[in-house]
Amino acid sequence: MASSSGQSVFFFAAGETEGNAGMKELLGGKGANLAEMTALGIPVPPGFTISTAVCSRFYQSSQKIPADVITDVEKSLLRVETKIGKKFGDRENPLLVSVRSGARASMPGMMDTILNLGLNDETVEGLAKKSGNPRFAWDSYRRFVQMYSDVVMGMNSSFLDVTLEDLKDEKKYKLDTEMKTEDLQHLVKKFKAQIFEATGQKFPSDAKDQLWGAIGAVFRSWNTPRAIAYRGLHGIPESWGTAVNVQSMVFGNMGDDSATGVAFSRNPSTGENKFYGEWLVNAQGEDVVAGIRTPNNLTRDEAAFHNAVGTSLEEKMPKIYTELVDIYKKLEGHYKDMQDMEFTIEQDRLWMLQTRNGKRTAPAALKIASDMIDEGLITEKQALIRLDAHSLDQLLHPMLDPKAKKTQLAKGLPASPGGACGQIVFTSEEACDWREKGKKVILVRIETSPEDILGMVAAQGILTTRGGMTSHAAVVARGMGKCCVAGVGDVTVDYLKEEMRVAGYVLKKGDIITLDGSTGAVYLGEVKTVEPKLDAVFERVMKLADKYRTMGVRANADTPKDAITARDFGAEGIGLCRTEHMFFGADRIDVMREMIIAEGKAEREEALERLLPMQRHDFLELFKTMKGFPVTIRLLDPPLHEFVPHTDDETRDLAERIKVDFERLRLKVKALHEFNPMLGHRGCRLAITFPEIYIMQTRAIAEAAGQLVKEGMKLVPEIMIPLVGMDSELLKLRELVVKEVEAVQKEMAVKFDYKVGTMIELPRAAVTADEIAVHADFFSFGTNDLTQTTLGLSRDDAARFLGSYVSEGIFKADPFVTIDQIGVGKLVKMAVDLGRRTKQDLKVGVCGEHGGDPDSIQFFQKTGLDYVSCSPYRVPIARLAAAQAAISGSGLASGGETR
Amino acid sequence: MASSSGQSVFFFAAGETEGNAGMKELLGGKGANLAEMTALGIPVPPGFTISTAVCSRFYQSSQKIPADVITDVEKSLLRVETKIGKKFGDRENPLLVSVRSGARASMPGMMDTILNLGLNDETVEGLAKKSGNPRFAWDSYRRFVQMYSDVVMGMNSSFLDVTLEDLKDEKKYKLDTEMKTEDLQHLVKKFKAQIFEATGQKFPSDAKDQLWGAIGAVFRSWNTPRAIAYRGLHGIPESWGTAVNVQSMVFGNMGDDSATGVAFSRNPSTGENKFYGEWLVNAQGEDVVAGIRTPNNLTRDEAAFHNAVGTSLEEKMPKIYTELVDIYKKLEGHYKDMQDMEFTIEQDRLWMLQTRNGKRTAPAALKIASDMIDEGLITEKQALIRLDAHSLDQLLHPMLDPKAKKTQLAKGLPASPGGACGQIVFTSEEACDWREKGKKVILVRIETSPEDILGMVAAQGILTTRGGMTSHAAVVARGMGKCCVAGVGDVTVDYLKEEMRVAGYVLKKGDIITLDGSTGAVYLGEVKTVEPKLDAVFERVMKLADKYRTMGVRANADTPKDAITARDFGAEGIGLCRTEHMFFGADRIDVMREMIIAEGKAEREEALERLLPMQRHDFLELFKTMKGFPVTIRLLDPPLHEFVPHTDDETRDLAERIKVDFERLRLKVKALHEFNPMLGHRGCRLAITFPEIYIMQTRAIAEAAGQLVKEGMKLVPEIMIPLVGMDSELLKLRELVVKEVEAVQKEMAVKFDYKVGTMIELPRAAVTADEIAVHADFFSFGTNDLTQTTLGLSRDDAARFLGSYVSEGIFKADPFVTIDQIGVGKLVKMAVDLGRRTKQDLKVGVCGEHGGDPDSIQFFQKTGLDYVSCSPYRVPIARLAAAQAAISGSGLASGGETR
Repeated sequence: MASSSGQSVFFFAAGETEGNAGMKELLGGKGANLAEMTALGIPVPPGFTISTAVCSRFYQSSQKIPADVITDVEKSLLRVETKIGKKFGDRENPLLVSVRSGARASMPGMMDTILNLGLNDETVEGLAKKSGNPRFAWDSYRRFVQMYSDVVMGMNSSFLDVTLEDLKDEKKYKLDTEMKTEDLQHLVKKFKAQIFEATGQKFPSDAKDQLWGAIGAVFRSWNTPRAIAYRGLHGIPESWGTAVNVQSMVFGNMGDDSATGVAFSRNPSTGENKFYGEWLVNAQGEDVVAGIRTPNNLTRDEAAFHNAVGTSLEEKMPKIYTELVDIYKKLEGHYKDMQDMEFTIEQDRLWMLQTRNGKRTAPAALKIASDMIDEGLITEKQALIRLDAHSLDQLLHPMLDPKAKKTQLAKGLPASPGGACGQIVFTSEEACDWREKGKKVILVRIETSPEDILGMVAAQGILTTRGGMTSHAAVVARGMGKCCVAGVGDVTVDYLKEEMRVAGYVLKKGDIITLDGSTGAVYLGEVKTVEPKLDAVFERVMKLADKYRTMGVRANADTPKDAITARDFGAEGIGLCRTEHMFFGADRIDVMREMIIAEGKAEREEALERLLPMQRHDFLELFKTMKGFPVTIRLLDPPLHEFVPHTDDETRDLAERIKVDFERLRLKVKALHEFNPMLGHRGCRLAITFPEIYIMQTRAIAEAAGQLVKEGMKLVPEIMIPLVGMDSELLKLRELVVKEVEAVQKEMAVKFDYKVGTMIELPRAAVTADEIAVHADFFSFGTNDLTQTTLGLSRDDAARFLGSYVSEGIFKADPFVTIDQIGVGKLVKMAVDLGRRTKQDLKVGVCGEHGGDPDSIQFFQKTGLDYVSCSPYRVPIARLAAAQAAISGSGLASGGETR
Repeated sequence: MASSSGQSVFFFAAGETEGNAGMKELLGGKGANLAEMTALGIPVPPGFTISTAVCSRFYQSSQKIPADVITDVEKSLLRVETKIGKKFGDRENPLLVSVRSGARASMPGMMDTILNLGLNDETVEGLAKKSGNPRFAWDSYRRFVQMYSDVVMGMNSSFLDVTLEDLKDEKKYKLDTEMKTEDLQHLVKKFKAQIFEATGQKFPSDAKDQLWGAIGAVFRSWNTPRAIAYRGLHGIPESWGTAVNVQSMVFGNMGDDSATGVAFSRNPSTGENKFYGEWLVNAQGEDVVAGIRTPNNLTRDEAAFHNAVGTSLEEKMPKIYTELVDIYKKLEGHYKDMQDMEFTIEQDRLWMLQTRNGKRTAPAALKIASDMIDEGLITEKQALIRLDAHSLDQLLHPMLDPKAKKTQLAKGLPASPGGACGQIVFTSEEACDWREKGKKVILVRIETSPEDILGMVAAQGILTTRGGMTSHAAVVARGMGKCCVAGVGDVTVDYLKEEMRVAGYVLKKGDIITLDGSTGAVYLGEVKTVEPKLDAVFERVMKLADKYRTMGVRANADTPKDAITARDFGAEGIGLCRTEHMFFGADRIDVMREMIIAEGKAEREEALERLLPMQRHDFLELFKTMKGFPVTIRLLDPPLHEFVPHTDDETRDLAERIKVDFERLRLKVKALHEFNPMLGHRGCRLAITFPEIYIMQTRAIAEAAGQLVKEGMKLVPEIMIPLVGMDSELLKLRELVVKEVEAVQKEMAVKFDYKVGTMIELPRAAVTADEIAVHADFFSFGTNDLTQTTLGLSRDDAARFLGSYVSEGIFKADPFVTIDQIGVGKLVKMAVDLGRRTKQDLKVGVCGEHGGDPDSIQFFQKTGLDYVSCSPYRVPIARLAAAQAAISGSGLASGGETR
């Protein structure tokens, strides 16, 4: 064996283990864990790991296994033989091994595995004799030939499958298990001939040759196209390489004293602290998975619960069961997390094949974390860190019943989670009408616009055929906590015929569909939903999160209803109140439109005059609901054409209602058209040209605040100017706001503090933040628009190519979901630094969609933001993610531990 | 007088002058120049300047003139009296003075002037007696009362105007000059009564009181709303303040031994080195300007040329003329520039009232600069620096005849200079048809799109009703050197009725209009144009510019025709060849469309196959024309929907032509629609989803280059990838390009060098330029798009509010014309620095519209760019501006000396 600094092969077996869990870089995840388990005194079939460093050497030496590695492998093999009392390639008592890859990071299904290696025409007889089960021996051999020829020799395995099926047909077998020893012997022979014919190579009969072939194949599997693609997608460097694990085989199918099973140290579905698992007597691991035989429960209690007294491992093999319980306790105590284990019992002897942190449902994750704190197993910080903040989403929305039968029609983007079921309608008007009649509807649109808000409120869920995760529909739906599946490209909508076509179906208005906003699936007909419950465990974890986080968490909320939801979820204020949504109410949209089409300032002011009391009422209610918690109000932002009708018919209706000439109205509406509305006449630009709009809004805020202050409430309204690019814009509008607030204070004879700040959502604002900060009491990053402008990427148009971008690995993640740290993030950091250079204690937050994304929250913590603001339904996620960010400093990825 | 460090009042008169031209900060521009002239021994009416520092003190002491300043002014007044032999307020021989403002920077028309100060009921008699002209004395008094009451006392001067007009009506006078002494005496009395009634103040009769009032008024004029607005617009700090100039009056209207005139040291229209000017005997300065009397020429030659022998100053007052000639030579020699002077002759004595660098036409500027080098008056560098690069534009396009009569209909943006006249057409098809029939047309569109290219080529000029200086129409027109007036908001176009409405006119298809692309004016009917001439002087100046500039100058050119123009104007290569323009030819647009609507890769490749030879031919011709000069070819950039028809009728036609189902085509076209095309599926994003497009274009370039290299030409094609935001995009596409070029080289058995670079036109590209530079041989800044994304401002939509932004002073200049240094410039600088950190000798240029803007060129020089690229017709401007930038380093503004 080489010197320890350059050691290539690491042996593991009771008392002689050379690796441990800390050596993942060198041994890969699987190898390190096998070594760790062995070292803990847990029975693991002995074996050895060829290090990842050898993988590089393999590629450097034209894909040959280096000579010193061959020597070391042979030495280790001898040690395995000694340990297990079998000999590799021996015709009497042959040692069989598995050969598996194991990289530093888990790459599930990406690389190859070979089992039963060491079998040939002679050793198979030894195995038959030793096991007393020739059929088992020949079936193992048959499987090995198939697997090896596929993985190592490049054989197209479907040819062998055909041969096998032909034989079954001929003999009229339905199941593989019906094949007799003779059949299997025949197949092995036939397979070998076919392999020679197809590949020109003889199937290796020498066990060592088999081994070298398998090791080389595992190394080569590191560079298959799918492995390369997977690495690209997950940012795994090629240089890491894979390790190779060679381990002696054990068999659970050697008779009634043999068995195989899986076990969880706690219930992965509920989190209950009870041992849980399934097993099958006289079976191989794959039989448990394959579902041909129904496995039994591990524990007596579970068996009794399922009316199957006497079938549990606890009852059938009490000694082994006790041993297994000792082991799971040891493993859980060691890894300090719920364990998912695989075991095999070979002729009354228990072997552990794998342990790993178990996957669990979101409620289970909370329960386990909470319990483990109480058990003193982990600290509060550890408990928080290992939760997956994303998964909390599951708890906050109604879910489709996982047991229900479903017919999937199409799949779109999981834009806003939850399940929803209802009758299809194609217009917002109809959504409202039907809802009033007590019907449940799904609003189906090609895309939505602010006019659709009321329809979205009325609907159970929203389906759009265009737009991405941050399209209008998606953002608004998430804000409402309403189920939404966006960008379902396979659905064609025909508004005229009032129908949609998908997967061969033509669905008419009134037909029922079901949406799963958590997966993006669209189902035919009704699928039952189940309601979420927020229990004490949830509340406890949230309180813990609040204890550790340093960033504030606010919500984006436009209405008292949203605000109540936000408060219920623990928001500490409103970070973004979008005043434009207030203008879509049936009682005011027409007044808003009159304002927009006004000829000249006087006419415009007349309409604004009528909007003022409505707007004041909005703020009054919002302030009351928030009881003094901070409320940031963004003055009007969207381009005015978003408020006007778009078809001639709608325009004609409006003209009649508000009594203006149709032609004048039509021309006015047409003149509002913009080529790139995202970059058009919106945000503070509206107020530079029409200052009276912001003056009205400011007055409404100030009058509402004034009234409440007079009534004894303490509040500090925060007025936010959107889309500032130039410091001079903010200077001008700040002056306008201050002048109006002071006028109101004088009129009402009341004084209150207030703040005037700005969105940072244009690259120019970011790079000149030092100048802008002069006129700003606070900054709030509008990372949606900042992402759009920095990347030059319209979120509404990106859907059609964002897919290619993610699959080609150009984007690691959708930049509208997780902030692009390298690009957009650089501008955010620059703006924070420049802004604080001007005002050391400048308050800085974020109110874009990224404010509710755990990975982005990590970044915001690192960048020194004071708070994040997100949709009410993401507040718990943000609270947890903020705590994780605070705990992990700048290092750990959120929730990474539980995967 | 105070100590010299704090001196407040600066006297000027022959032999006793206390200031000079270097003291503009303290004395203002006018005061410093009066002192300088006096010090040169030139006869200037004596007087004194109250410094700008006093202005601040005036405001600090509640708008009172400080006591020490009063003392100093009185002392200086005594010195003036002594010099001139008259006494202020004296009833026998009264000294009269003018009181004028004079700030550090010129603020034309922004502040106030008072003449004839010192007149009252007594001194007016002295003046009458002394001048022997009572009418002159009373008319001066009458004017003084009007002026003083307006400027100092806040009198609404229109009341006095009414009184004057009433008197003229009553007496049936037509002209002011018909008024008699008695009339004027009556008016003065009446005026004073009116003033008392309106203001409650008596008109001051004491000369000193008049003086203090006037000085205070001048200081106050520094803070009038219009002065504040002007300062805001021109970035003049309030703290500078204004000086006050008090100067003894001289009169050119005291008889036939008196006169007044203006003189230029060289001809301001042609630049010819000949003394030039006009004068009037027995007249005041304003009479020359007012146009009531026709002035005579100064020189004998000019008078003879105008058949007016004997009328010149040279002939009438030879002694004075000689004195004037001496003075102008002295002044020109001193200031080393052509001088524009005002003089007055009072009773046979010459007084110089003003001298300044004279305005001149563009040809005159070139001639004067060229001559002065030869005369040894200035250096080559000085000559270049003082030219106004912008003004060269005048030389490069046909101009409207300045003498022609015109009826202006409307004014838009001067989008592309030159004059153009023709019949109105509303579609590109018609433009082409009519042109073929030999008609001259003006293409009138609401806006243009790439489909309109052929129509624009066919038209004499283009008028659009929407879009700004960098709208599609504007950019393309400038590239073609074609007259364009853009964004004429007052014009309403009705395509259906084929008419446009403007200023009450309804103009039909076929009606004639004329455009002035240099001013933005639109005229009714035909206005004659004159052709430009590029003479030897122009060529000489261009060569001089080339001698001094350090940045390269290339042109943006898409066709061999453009390329020839570019070479003729001295371009050293093509910095941007936009390949999309190549696809609009009648023979290929339908093939392009087939490619776009193709179902799947195979169909797409089939269409591309047919485009390949056409594209190859394009590049072959372009390379041939450029004879080895560098050519940068940008691969396809615009979103695909720009190439497809937009109406159902056009779509139906196309469907028939290319034999596809109309409905399929319509849906495909509809699916291409984007909300924000600027931020959509375009640029390199097209090639990530459809790599075969760039592969075809690369092949066409490589095959063309390969053929020419085989024929012995040396060329290094530069392939440019647009809209890169992520380094991974460039990495992928670079690999694609390299692979294809190498394949072609192998097929053709030829080798040539080539470069692969990228546009930097997204903020993300700028902030991650270090990563992008790894894969780039060169950067070219697309400052148009970089401005749009950095500012979040669509150039096509900005027109409707850009006006407010410039007039409100938020933008100093249109950011699409002159680069926004603070914001966009910061990103450019960052990208250059980051890029060169990765590759020290990275070649960096700019190919946005800013590449032809002198102020932007200054910035690019400072930022270390290697070259600028602009439309062919701006190449001479860029050559000169680049020379100026190189000479001035980072200091002087281009051409600032000539204003």
